[in-house]
Amino acid sequence: MRTLTEIIDALGRPSRFDPAPVDDEARRAIFNAARVAPSADNVQMWRFVIARDPACRAGLLAALPRPSRPLFESAPLLVAALGEPWFVKGSRREQPFFMIDVPIAISHIVLQAGELGLACAVEYDLDETAVKQTVGAGEGFRAVAVLAIGTPRAA
Amino acid sequence: MRTLTEIIDALGRPSRFDPAPVDDEARRAIFNAARVAPSADNVQMWRFVIARDPACRAGLLAALPRPSRPLFESAPLLVAALGEPWFVKGSRREQPFFMIDVPIAISHIVLQAGELGLACAVEYDLDETAVKQTVGAGEGFRAVAVLAIGTPRAA
Repeated sequence: MRTLTEIIDALGRPSRFDPAPVDDEARRAIFNAARVAPSADNVQMWRFVIARDPACRAGLLAALPRPSRPLFESAPLLVAALGEPWFVKGSRREQPFFMIDVPIAISHIVLQAGELGLACAVEYDLDETAVKQTVGAGEGFRAVAVLAIGTPRAA
Repeated sequence: MRTLTEIIDALGRPSRFDPAPVDDEARRAIFNAARVAPSADNVQMWRFVIARDPACRAGLLAALPRPSRPLFESAPLLVAALGEPWFVKGSRREQPFFMIDVPIAISHIVLQAGELGLACAVEYDLDETAVKQTVGAGEGFRAVAVLAIGTPRAA
């Protein structure tokens, strides 16, 4: 098992992923790491949607900047990361907490993937409307990022 | 050495810190974990300022919501986390990347502290102007959070 320092040292976007699927146990561990991440008022307003069919995958890929698509297309697991900002109420200031809390949960996913010998590429620069339409997210949701998870292919 | 899963499972805000200082080696490890965090365009626009004198500590404490002050006051190490948003240029959208990247770096600090048996409490709800004045941050900076790091006191 890698230490956190080893995990962090090995971080980095792979050039491509292997097509081998992410097994259930790894997937559970990864999303569990997100589930227990700290959040404003502990409301955990993150929402992760796994792309299970080709149309959903295609929709998420189309929402990414063109240079990111080949890498994300190679990943066996694509995930849309969204937030429900209205869950945090009564803040003294208009902090965009969904832009804090969802990335923190994502960083847990990235590190947990690293512990398991997997990699997670994250794209925050996306067409938010396209992501929301693809996953059927209604009003009250914000799309934050798209994640690509898998085994990094040896260079 | 704790695994990431153990670190994550043990996360949580302590009720108080021990006064024992955070030694240099731990401090270096903690900030190194932040230093190598992923960021937009890899520009690493986070800025961490360690409060080294009583006036700086008092200024940061005064910028916090009242209920957070006793815990933060008990910590041997107080840190202001700021960002320089203008480092990220040319984004397609007006993503508040400093609100993504600084929290990700902070989550690395929280987890690295956890690996070392320390705790890091994070307060994002703060008087930004007061934090910036306290640390002498000029235009172009945003104050994101105040961190309290130390050994959690046994309940």
